[in-house]
Amino acid sequence: MNSDYGAFTLDPVGRVESTIKDRTDAPKQGDEGAPDAWIVFEPEFREAAMDLEPGDRLVVLTWLDRADRTVQRNHSRGDSSRPLMGVFGNRSPDRPNPIGLHTVTVSEVDGLRVLVSDLEAFDGTPVLDVKAELPPIGER
Amino acid sequence: MNSDYGAFTLDPVGRVESTIKDRTDAPKQGDEGAPDAWIVFEPEFREAAMDLEPGDRLVVLTWLDRADRTVQRNHSRGDSSRPLMGVFGNRSPDRPNPIGLHTVTVSEVDGLRVLVSDLEAFDGTPVLDVKAELPPIGER
Repeated sequence: MNSDYGAFTLDPVGRVESTIKDRTDAPKQGDEGAPDAWIVFEPEFREAAMDLEPGDRLVVLTWLDRADRTVQRNHSRGDSSRPLMGVFGNRSPDRPNPIGLHTVTVSEVDGLRVLVSDLEAFDGTPVLDVKAELPPIGER
Repeated sequence: MNSDYGAFTLDPVGRVESTIKDRTDAPKQGDEGAPDAWIVFEPEFREAAMDLEPGDRLVVLTWLDRADRTVQRNHSRGDSSRPLMGVFGNRSPDRPNPIGLHTVTVSEVDGLRVLVSDLEAFDGTPVLDVKAELPPIGER
């Protein structure tokens, strides 16, 4: 076990560098027009990041540090014509543990800097984890 | 901003109840034979969970509390015939911030208890977040 029962502490493994500065610039999801963005890994995680290559499909987990962690119900996509609903049933960034999920494709690797498409995160957003997208069962 | 620059603290929103007790019981991924399991939400997050319904497709984020956070490179799927690779390019549970991703389908809801298929997490695993699976662009 690496944590006590109550709470867990996460250090970011990197940061997002993006031209998206706030919510007015950001699409609702990465495949709705996000610009290319860099993931910049911390040097201490060089070994974990060293096999990434252009063309890789990845899932990036971010810490949405500008989210409101007190929100439990809201309107999906900020659209007040939709009914109020619990955030565990929608994709709101506002939620108790605001972890963002982003499926991206690597286009360039430059040491600790990895350029990806479809990452709708603000400039400076902490990156918590990066994983391979899960391939179909026969190709794992 | 809801955190300092350095590290973030997460409290679980619930726990997994499963017949999977350790790695010898667990499939590598949920769609490779995981048993049905319950997500049991903490009462303080009742409002966030209250609109979940049978048939919902969800992404469950867990805290893999038995993972080794010091691992940066290993063999995918624990298969030593595969090359060593950085964990940001595979799906190893061992990684610096061991957050598990599970795509599940709700089959039953009983107050704060939600029964789901395809959740390959150990009994007692903390749940960090639950989100709707992202539908195709035209259906969001």
